[in-house]
Amino acid sequence: MSTKAWTDKDVQALFERVKNWGKWGADDEKGTLNYITPASRARAAAAVKSGRTVSCARNFPVHPHPENPFPAQHHMVVAGDDPCIPGIKGLEVSTDYIGIAFHGMASSHIDALCHVFVDGKMYNGFPATDVKSTGARRGSIMCARDGITSRGVLLDIPRLLGVEWLDPKTAITIEQLEAAEQAQGVRVTEGDIVLVATGRDARREKHGPWSPLTDGLAGMHPECAEWIYDRGIAVLGGDGVSDVLPNIGIEGWAMPIHQCTLAGMGVHLLDNLRLDRLSEACARHKRWSFLFTVAPLRVERATGSPVNPIAML
Amino acid sequence: MSTKAWTDKDVQALFERVKNWGKWGADDEKGTLNYITPASRARAAAAVKSGRTVSCARNFPVHPHPENPFPAQHHMVVAGDDPCIPGIKGLEVSTDYIGIAFHGMASSHIDALCHVFVDGKMYNGFPATDVKSTGARRGSIMCARDGITSRGVLLDIPRLLGVEWLDPKTAITIEQLEAAEQAQGVRVTEGDIVLVATGRDARREKHGPWSPLTDGLAGMHPECAEWIYDRGIAVLGGDGVSDVLPNIGIEGWAMPIHQCTLAGMGVHLLDNLRLDRLSEACARHKRWSFLFTVAPLRVERATGSPVNPIAML
Amino acid sequence: MSTKAWTDKDVQALFERVKNWGKWGADDEKGTLNYITPASRARAAAAVKSGRTVSCARNFPVHPHPENPFPAQHHMVVAGDDPCIPGIKGLEVSTDYIGIAFHGMASSHIDALCHVFVDGKMYNGFPATDVKSTGARRGSIMCARDGITSRGVLLDIPRLLGVEWLDPKTAITIEQLEAAEQAQGVRVTEGDIVLVATGRDARREKHGPWSPLTDGLAGMHPECAEWIYDRGIAVLGGDGVSDVLPNIGIEGWAMPIHQCTLAGMGVHLLDNLRLDRLSEACARHKRWSFLFTVAPLRVERATGSPVNPIAML
Amino acid sequence: MSTKAWTDKDVQALFERVKNWGKWGADDEKGTLNYITPASRARAAAAVKSGRTVSCARNFPVHPHPENPFPAQHHMVVAGDDPCIPGIKGLEVSTDYIGIAFHGMASSHIDALCHVFVDGKMYNGFPATDVKSTGARRGSIMCARDGITSRGVLLDIPRLLGVEWLDPKTAITIEQLEAAEQAQGVRVTEGDIVLVATGRDARREKHGPWSPLTDGLAGMHPECAEWIYDRGIAVLGGDGVSDVLPNIGIEGWAMPIHQCTLAGMGVHLLDNLRLDRLSEACARHKRWSFLFTVAPLRVERATGSPVNPIAML
Repeated sequence: MSTKAWTDKDVQALFERVKNWGKWGADDEKGTLNYITPASRARAAAAVKSGRTVSCARNFPVHPHPENPFPAQHHMVVAGDDPCIPGIKGLEVSTDYIGIAFHGMASSHIDALCHVFVDGKMYNGFPATDVKSTGARRGSIMCARDGITSRGVLLDIPRLLGVEWLDPKTAITIEQLEAAEQAQGVRVTEGDIVLVATGRDARREKHGPWSPLTDGLAGMHPECAEWIYDRGIAVLGGDGVSDVLPNIGIEGWAMPIHQCTLAGMGVHLLDNLRLDRLSEACARHKRWSFLFTVAPLRVERATGSPVNPIAML
Repeated sequence: MSTKAWTDKDVQALFERVKNWGKWGADDEKGTLNYITPASRARAAAAVKSGRTVSCARNFPVHPHPENPFPAQHHMVVAGDDPCIPGIKGLEVSTDYIGIAFHGMASSHIDALCHVFVDGKMYNGFPATDVKSTGARRGSIMCARDGITSRGVLLDIPRLLGVEWLDPKTAITIEQLEAAEQAQGVRVTEGDIVLVATGRDARREKHGPWSPLTDGLAGMHPECAEWIYDRGIAVLGGDGVSDVLPNIGIEGWAMPIHQCTLAGMGVHLLDNLRLDRLSEACARHKRWSFLFTVAPLRVERATGSPVNPIAML
Repeated sequence: MSTKAWTDKDVQALFERVKNWGKWGADDEKGTLNYITPASRARAAAAVKSGRTVSCARNFPVHPHPENPFPAQHHMVVAGDDPCIPGIKGLEVSTDYIGIAFHGMASSHIDALCHVFVDGKMYNGFPATDVKSTGARRGSIMCARDGITSRGVLLDIPRLLGVEWLDPKTAITIEQLEAAEQAQGVRVTEGDIVLVATGRDARREKHGPWSPLTDGLAGMHPECAEWIYDRGIAVLGGDGVSDVLPNIGIEGWAMPIHQCTLAGMGVHLLDNLRLDRLSEACARHKRWSFLFTVAPLRVERATGSPVNPIAML
Repeated sequence: MSTKAWTDKDVQALFERVKNWGKWGADDEKGTLNYITPASRARAAAAVKSGRTVSCARNFPVHPHPENPFPAQHHMVVAGDDPCIPGIKGLEVSTDYIGIAFHGMASSHIDALCHVFVDGKMYNGFPATDVKSTGARRGSIMCARDGITSRGVLLDIPRLLGVEWLDPKTAITIEQLEAAEQAQGVRVTEGDIVLVATGRDARREKHGPWSPLTDGLAGMHPECAEWIYDRGIAVLGGDGVSDVLPNIGIEGWAMPIHQCTLAGMGVHLLDNLRLDRLSEACARHKRWSFLFTVAPLRVERATGSPVNPIAML
């Protein structure tokens, strides 16, 4: 594979090839979540062995740092210095408030299909203007309101390569994804939730947070879109944002994986996960697949949700 | 059992009897989550049959109504009329913002153990003043950061009684809980997440929302605290707030179930769930237990989290 | 004058008659703020006598009640139980957070010209679509960034009529406005900020808050738009929302004063003021004009701002 | 004057010397706002000449940059792509939401007297614990609910020194304040609102924003507290935060001007103003005093408010 030759035309052609528009009907808003069935979920549950659970989320991003230019809000409404609740006499409570613009680079969140448009259209051809200032009429996260549960598969690329992390701007290839499958003894199949680790957590631990926009992130080369399509992946996630940042030089396609998955195939994305804890657990248990549950908040017309995805091995 | 005779002294004695302070060590912040083990989780996963998933959450409460005097915020940051993202040229996106003081009567949420104090103390004797204006040093929701997964059991009291719903202010008794177990062919055991349905969803569907504070809610009689303790329930949830509202006449104990579970036993609570969809599914599948997953957002020092709990049958 | 005969056509004709589109150039975004000049401001300052100041704002609306279905947020970030500030060692501080969707019925605020459209157009013919999900490109409150200061005139209609307040749904007529001028010994002239009191504060004090949308508000009959235009009023304010609620029966024009002033003439509006304190002060000083200052927050692209307008007599 | 010799003891002694605790009664919460009288306000109004108004506020700080690690929120609730309002059929509107933790380094705001404590006490000896998680019982901004209007005086130190700006960490001395008075032909007297310009706006314009906490700000040497006290200044403001950052080496007093004014004298502070526009206007009009109006939002129990102070020359 040559990663150098890619041009706008190549991504355009790939985008057209992997488009699932119309595949599940003209009104479909679930995209590749359609690959997940009760039967596949039951299989994933039956495969649980140890019962150990691991969160794949980072902590709620309230502190400002280079990854987090728009910190979330967490405020106490009532604390223990004045425990009280209006309307219920004598009850001592503490309560708080959270607020977040969750599509940042420090927040573990799920992207709804309406999050990205290509040429003014989202998945299944719905116009961008269906996402109004008052919310998304189409492609909102509510298609996942009953949660997303399926078999999860972690592919740990730094482990494959024997490094602690991939440097920012590194592009992961199909060859590497398949090598990771082989090395880990797992094979991605239709309906899987696939998590690709780049070692971002380890690098942050060592060097502190850095700005993804100015300093870059490792991610998947655009060619991987085809692999995602061919394998019938239901949901894609990563410790970065799946895409390489900055763009690998294809001017017309700023985030080709985001664009091909969300807008083309209808694959929901999980951004800014923590995968180091899961990778350790998988290595210890020598199993790289697990029952995986993502439970978006039921926010009507939303473009996604902050989440705390849970893997059970 | 006579529900009339209860006084402050009775609840006080019960509170003392069911206290788990010190049981798992002086520093313990997990309470009865300690009852859940990898083994019990694996058993719950292995028991999954159909693979069907059902959300037990209400939609994010953005509309004002009598249950919801403090509506949550859901605002678009960027919509399809101006799709743009700072720093990434050419990418067409939409994004939004959510904000919520989640301890309301319309929001499906989990209460952390620091949410309620009795006489200035939370679970395990930590002082209320450990919950500062800058967050909870003790008893925060972070003890559940890896998610709460266990066997869930639904007890549907209106179904037991052959009614659509329990009227507000109705107190559920231990006898009824056990009758429901029998009728449904299920028995609550240590480490279970127990959900008690009062039919609130059906009543709201028919009559519209009402104010729990002024018009009341059905819930569990204080005596049920003993049953919760004896059975070793890990987490308790309901379509109301587990307690009867208003208080059944015990002046010194405003919400005895909240107080005995959160502050006494260290039982996390799930408030304002939707249980009608789950009840239907259980009835159809003739199974009243399921794999249950609650994934609180990882908000450090928080008194709980909005959640979308998922049952898999 | 007959207030009964008014139809859509009447308001439509009036709207056309009072339109100031193009009057101050095709790019103008200030509307009748153009009537206020340094000279008129200097005159207003020179007319100050007692130096007494009176706020015309209600308190920040954080409590839910029938006027306030979407309460504002006021949260402490740091309180005196944990006084600290990140980055400055040893400083003891307390800080807080406020949030508000200010165009409610309980918040004293100023409406920018982009707040209301008629047939898809705002003042000066700018299209509604210039107000994007990312903010108002035209007609934002930033045209008033240097504050609005001019002579203010209070017209107190209940005082004129010898009543404590006007009942909700009452329509004030031009005749009454002019009678108030006469009774109070003041005459509205070009560049004035005119405040019309309906006694809402007194009624709320006595009967508690009520819902303006369901139970109505007193306000100005649509015919008053012509008087506002003829007098060259710069800014209009009231203790209600200037309009009668609900609409007096003109189906096609929901809030004719809002529509004729904001969208037609380019008159900024001040909604939900408190005018009872000012009225008392004016009566005591026997002067119904004063130096009036409104200082909107400089929020770029905003549709208005919460304000605390100050009268100096 | 030697600025080098200052120690903790010197500031401690100065703090004691300038304390106004008890001066206006044990319950007083207004501090030096007591110096402003109707008569002094009337004089200030009478002195207005040109009628020109100038805002002294920066724009609402929604963009992240080194001065602004916690950007404010400004979201459209309804934009022109979907103009609608619940409850009022047929009205076309746009509305928005703002949120801010205003005590940042980029937000023009007023500090209430409860904002700073010294040894656990705020102005007039009220304990820090009077500022609860549920708001300030004492020393809140509500003491200024009728606005703060008085004569304003601008002292432009860079202009005095013939430089564009003072470098960060520069300490302004009493000598310089008095030299500026002399050069500008103005003298600060009791009840004045004094604004001290350091040229921060010009430096930011040229070099972009920088972090006050890590890179410093010019401000007043602690010795100036005495001058503020002696002159009877009612309110103090600046384009920085009045204090030099970082601390000039007095370990025990992190922000001595903040501490001596807010907690000692009861002088409200205006932080992060824009003073370049006002300075230009003053130079053009050859007058360095003006009518000055600050209108804090009426937020009960708040530690301050975002403001847009208006000078009228």
